[in-house]
Amino acid sequence: MEMEAYQGYQYVDGGVCASSGFVAGGLNCGLNPDKNKNDLCLVYSETSCDTAAVYTTNKVKGAPILVTKENLKQSGGKAKAIVANSKNANTCNANGMEIARSTCDIVAKELGIESSEVIVASTGVIGQPMTIEPFLEGIPRLAGRLTVDGHADAANAIMTTDTVPKEVAVAFTLDGKPCHLGGMAKGSGMIHPNMATTLNFITSDVAISSEMIQEALADIVKLTYNCLTIDGDTSTNDMVSVMANGLSGNTKITAKDADYEVFKQALYIVMLNMTRMLAKDGEGASKLLECIVSGAPDLDTAIAVAKSVAGSTLFKCALFGEDANCGRIMCAIGYADGDFAIDEVSVILSSLNGSIVVCEQGNGVNFSEEKAADILSQDEITVLIDLHQGEAEAKAWGCDMTYDYVKINGDYRS
Amino acid sequence: MEMEAYQGYQYVDGGVCASSGFVAGGLNCGLNPDKNKNDLCLVYSETSCDTAAVYTTNKVKGAPILVTKENLKQSGGKAKAIVANSKNANTCNANGMEIARSTCDIVAKELGIESSEVIVASTGVIGQPMTIEPFLEGIPRLAGRLTVDGHADAANAIMTTDTVPKEVAVAFTLDGKPCHLGGMAKGSGMIHPNMATTLNFITSDVAISSEMIQEALADIVKLTYNCLTIDGDTSTNDMVSVMANGLSGNTKITAKDADYEVFKQALYIVMLNMTRMLAKDGEGASKLLECIVSGAPDLDTAIAVAKSVAGSTLFKCALFGEDANCGRIMCAIGYADGDFAIDEVSVILSSLNGSIVVCEQGNGVNFSEEKAADILSQDEITVLIDLHQGEAEAKAWGCDMTYDYVKINGDYRS
Repeated sequence: MEMEAYQGYQYVDGGVCASSGFVAGGLNCGLNPDKNKNDLCLVYSETSCDTAAVYTTNKVKGAPILVTKENLKQSGGKAKAIVANSKNANTCNANGMEIARSTCDIVAKELGIESSEVIVASTGVIGQPMTIEPFLEGIPRLAGRLTVDGHADAANAIMTTDTVPKEVAVAFTLDGKPCHLGGMAKGSGMIHPNMATTLNFITSDVAISSEMIQEALADIVKLTYNCLTIDGDTSTNDMVSVMANGLSGNTKITAKDADYEVFKQALYIVMLNMTRMLAKDGEGASKLLECIVSGAPDLDTAIAVAKSVAGSTLFKCALFGEDANCGRIMCAIGYADGDFAIDEVSVILSSLNGSIVVCEQGNGVNFSEEKAADILSQDEITVLIDLHQGEAEAKAWGCDMTYDYVKINGDYRS
Repeated sequence: MEMEAYQGYQYVDGGVCASSGFVAGGLNCGLNPDKNKNDLCLVYSETSCDTAAVYTTNKVKGAPILVTKENLKQSGGKAKAIVANSKNANTCNANGMEIARSTCDIVAKELGIESSEVIVASTGVIGQPMTIEPFLEGIPRLAGRLTVDGHADAANAIMTTDTVPKEVAVAFTLDGKPCHLGGMAKGSGMIHPNMATTLNFITSDVAISSEMIQEALADIVKLTYNCLTIDGDTSTNDMVSVMANGLSGNTKITAKDADYEVFKQALYIVMLNMTRMLAKDGEGASKLLECIVSGAPDLDTAIAVAKSVAGSTLFKCALFGEDANCGRIMCAIGYADGDFAIDEVSVILSSLNGSIVVCEQGNGVNFSEEKAADILSQDEITVLIDLHQGEAEAKAWGCDMTYDYVKINGDYRS
């Protein structure tokens, strides 16, 4: 997938280790019977990190979410390590809190830090019993081999039905000092906009207060992860955390000044690209769908319309069938929340193969089915919707609905 | 599908013609290239009917919806005929209003009634141009052959991707007079609770004011069609109409008295069975899913939880795979709207093959996978969810998500 260029920012390798002072690693600790698939990862910063996070709004929350919240509250928004596992979500488990807390204790002991400095996360099957044994064995083994090259092993460890690991990082400058911000994400199914979507761990060497990270994160998550939908199911274990250890040596950002905007833009670039990667790797997906809404009366309406179309099961099926069924798009626009008129709506389908108008002034128009099929044959499709009643714009991302989605989720637990 | 028995009500044949004084018919007027499939129907009552209707809340509304609203407003809630077509939804068409109005005019002329006494409805592809010609030719031909046996031809005419026609009718008594209430419905995809779902035409020979019909309809639709979800897409053309011609000779119902409750119960029985038929015939569906929520703090919460589970794409896939993935159920309970706790939730899976507890006190429990698979191998599955925090209960209906759903909607227009 091509990543858009942004002036002043260079894409770099390294994921969660792109920033100075971070090491990571991943291995198989026996949660996943496939020994070639990592299921446990650690990320560590020697120096303390100002940290912020957002969490799922699902009322059913994984025990690790609750423990991470506790820890960050106790530490005053400071963290030094992340521990995450796949294969078991440690959610709806009677001993879930005990396991999540013990996991932090083991990490703390091995790394010589406080338990409250640990971010803990789990992803996988919900409501499946689990024991502390894999962590008791795996964490000490892993703690001894954390390196700056370990980011890829870590990114592999949080994958579930993901078909590719997801890492993005950028380099930029603040006060003339080289700075970095990067991370890793997992997520493929059970993805629907709601405060945070998927597991995503971001690290940075910028000096910035946890309050300012939280402000930036709240703004950016609204425009990126919260505009992503794979299947309308909001996970119980969603979390996005951002840790910044300040090793770049820039003047610490504590207010919404110009430096804050530079940091926030870096966060936007990384999270936007992660969002697109997550959409493209949606469970069973064969096509990335980007909906761009313009001419909306306000931002919330623009977001609502974009998300409604990106999330329409019927349109997702039409996309899979490469069928230019503009009625499905109009229908999904029509049931989006918001007070807007549909009389002036225009819709354009677009891809590398060109563009075609399929709807004008709220009505379907005659178009070349051949040309439309050619456009939809690409694997990245853009739907441009202009409401013609304001200046607000927004984007949302999704993917097509395929046989493979049904297959994967017909037998997810095995 | 077995229909539950209700004391004082007998299921009878006849659909929209089960009530005295109604005739109907259906034929192919050329909208559908398959000449063996009806695409146009008429229902007619010689005497004027008190009438009420509910419509889709989608902001994109089919022209027939707007014209029916106009007509019932102009006639003061009186109607004598229904005309409906399949294959083209007459929605997002530049000449849609003109076509819908002309269709009513043709019906009025042929039957010797006012245009404002006609209910008009269309279902099919959205945003596809259409002409008046098929109606000009088909309506006069059809008007000459309406009979009490024509209900089946009419029910066939409104089918789109439906695999079976849907008719239900009951007989009961009021003031010792034999009364009837029955109808026909279509609907398979693009089904999601929102005021009304699908096309549904109900007729009765009870004497009742249109105001009382409207009250009963609003209450019953909330507990039946609005608790049905196939794919989360709310149609642009949904409509439920109820016409009552009073030929039974009962004392006209004009207040919420005991007779009103008898009528309302008949409406409930017919709409409940229609709802179950629609769920079972969901696009590509292989299983009917019924979610029963009890122990909720209030009715709205009970409905929200039931609908959330019935509508979860992930749980629908698990159901297709006959995988007792209770985590999917807990996740969907957790993202339902409402202020409730999840600590006491219990979940039971049930079918003709037995029942099994999969979740207690908010946590997954060990259960026999073999027994669970046996239960899920049936084609009607019930999920019993007890929130253990109140007295309210509700039901919602849906179906599994299958390869065939994706296939049907990958190529819906052809």
